[in-house]
Amino acid sequence: MHYLDNAATTRVADEAAETAARVLREHFANPSSLYAAGARAEAIISAARETVAASLGVKTGEILFTGSGTEADNIAVQGALRARAAWGEHIVVSGFEHPAVQNAVSYMQKQGWRVTTVRPDAQGHLDLDAMVRAVGTKTALCACMHVNNEVGTIMDVARLAREVKAKNPRTAVHVDGVQAWGKVPLKLSATMIDSYAVSGHKIHAPKGVGALYLRRGFHIEPLILGGLQEYGMRPGTENTAYIAAMAKAVELLQADKTRAQRVRALSDRLWKGLAGIEGIVRNSPEDALPDVANFSVENIRSETMLHFLESRDVCVSSGSACSKGEASHTLNAMGLARSRVDGAVRVSFSGENTAEDVDALLAGLRDGIRALAKVRK
Amino acid sequence: MHYLDNAATTRVADEAAETAARVLREHFANPSSLYAAGARAEAIISAARETVAASLGVKTGEILFTGSGTEADNIAVQGALRARAAWGEHIVVSGFEHPAVQNAVSYMQKQGWRVTTVRPDAQGHLDLDAMVRAVGTKTALCACMHVNNEVGTIMDVARLAREVKAKNPRTAVHVDGVQAWGKVPLKLSATMIDSYAVSGHKIHAPKGVGALYLRRGFHIEPLILGGLQEYGMRPGTENTAYIAAMAKAVELLQADKTRAQRVRALSDRLWKGLAGIEGIVRNSPEDALPDVANFSVENIRSETMLHFLESRDVCVSSGSACSKGEASHTLNAMGLARSRVDGAVRVSFSGENTAEDVDALLAGLRDGIRALAKVRK
Repeated sequence: MHYLDNAATTRVADEAAETAARVLREHFANPSSLYAAGARAEAIISAARETVAASLGVKTGEILFTGSGTEADNIAVQGALRARAAWGEHIVVSGFEHPAVQNAVSYMQKQGWRVTTVRPDAQGHLDLDAMVRAVGTKTALCACMHVNNEVGTIMDVARLAREVKAKNPRTAVHVDGVQAWGKVPLKLSATMIDSYAVSGHKIHAPKGVGALYLRRGFHIEPLILGGLQEYGMRPGTENTAYIAAMAKAVELLQADKTRAQRVRALSDRLWKGLAGIEGIVRNSPEDALPDVANFSVENIRSETMLHFLESRDVCVSSGSACSKGEASHTLNAMGLARSRVDGAVRVSFSGENTAEDVDALLAGLRDGIRALAKVRK
Repeated sequence: MHYLDNAATTRVADEAAETAARVLREHFANPSSLYAAGARAEAIISAARETVAASLGVKTGEILFTGSGTEADNIAVQGALRARAAWGEHIVVSGFEHPAVQNAVSYMQKQGWRVTTVRPDAQGHLDLDAMVRAVGTKTALCACMHVNNEVGTIMDVARLAREVKAKNPRTAVHVDGVQAWGKVPLKLSATMIDSYAVSGHKIHAPKGVGALYLRRGFHIEPLILGGLQEYGMRPGTENTAYIAAMAKAVELLQADKTRAQRVRALSDRLWKGLAGIEGIVRNSPEDALPDVANFSVENIRSETMLHFLESRDVCVSSGSACSKGEASHTLNAMGLARSRVDGAVRVSFSGENTAEDVDALLAGLRDGIRALAKVRK
């Protein structure tokens, strides 16, 4: 199988799966229990927290573990707004957020919050100055993802946070870092970002675990109430096994020093190949993260092409998996023509992909365009 | 190790751990992805949903998977209240709920909801009639657990729901079934209960997965917003591996036809043994679920006894693990004297326990009382 849908999810790394399986077998005790077996489970979580914190350049106590990136985003967004309801009335958000942020903001909008949405341009670039300009004295939250999940645009979120805070120090700055973690280096403690959400399954850990950076002193109200786990900000018995597996995945990613360079080479090979195929239009910006490549095939609907490619054992997608095949939120936000949105293909690499995967995709696209065009005649 | 803290968490069953490990290895695709690998992951989730639904006597489409029992409780409690905010202003809740429900209700109380709390009596019994009496025209929610996690009281939640609905059909009835699942038979579709929360790790599945029954047509607003997973009521990429492992744990539980009888025998052996030890006072009601046994040791603090027992490889607790050693919420609600609360020991069985575990505990208690009393002299 040529799996080229790593922005949807990644293969669980063998060592991460083994870590999860070992912890499930050996460390079942409740990490909150007072006997030694509980303390050993708690120690596994503490070690993982250090690993995750170090990967983001923050203090250990600034990391919460969650059940998903979506949950991390919601705790940050809803929690920040709940904590600022006394004076806040306005939210600034990018127009191509993941549904986890977009829909949390829309929900708060229904509760009466005013929302300014700054859309990306047709090249997939976001005007950060426009976001900063929109921040006012009643702006409680400015939310912007670090890397867009559909086209790969990288946002300078450190600059955004600095400029938002210069305009209104009380405005919470949340960054969805799910697609950036381990790929775009960023020392969060050196920025003015208040919260940053990440997810395990985008970096070869299992699905069902994420983490949230909350800057020390940053005030939010918890979304889920319960026991004292995760500083009371994310109660529920801790998933020791997956937390350990996520830390293992972080270590594997850090140990792979040539990943960025290999993915860049795959991306270059892909775009070079695509340039030689008639009827392909690039949707990703030129300076996108090479891990994500989005383009449209003229006159062929995404689903049709995806199924053709699947018959060649090539797995790609039409956009975010979370929207289950609905028209791309990001491409619509970019204002692309309907025909282009309907023909979109998203390719996303991991460090496990090879030139053969790219070549299989390119051959599949060439043959697909020929075969499917023939059908239409 | 004599592990007698199964209300805190259970050992992950070998077959459940193997199921999780196998799915992590073989089915990493995103269940929302449109290609065949995604559909296979989705099929695993669908099969698990059928198993879980059948175990609760409900329709497959009435089950959501969550990241924990705590999350399931919060989705139900906060979601029901959010959906009833237009007319509701009152909540009725038992006085010995798990923190997942108790603290969710307290949070809503701070938002302006009026709360009637019905406390258990000194024997650990709850007056359901008093709960029903408290329901009025503005009561949006009545929440009562099925089995108390600290003393094991079983509540007739089917009767409660029937009588609450007779008084106010609009009142949502939520039941925390975490300690009852697989132990107290209940066909939810034959009751008027609107929502019922369960957790995997109390039945030998991993920590980090739970489920929520939502009666068809029961209206709640989602707590976490995002993608379209779990009918949009619990977005976030599905934890295929743990969902499958939880279904496996359900199957194992269902296949074990003598479990209830074995646990009853262990409970009888324990209480008989305790009756022969001076200075032990029973806290669990006589008709409690045999899986949970709570008693106090006179003049010896819980932590002291727990550490002594641990030196004999006997693991028990002083109450809910989620409160990390704080004084028992349930025993305080029962109005027990401080000295009795401070000396509480909770024993909780699984189907894996044996008479040797009980005997080791009893010997440990006898020796502990002698040794620790000597220290005090």
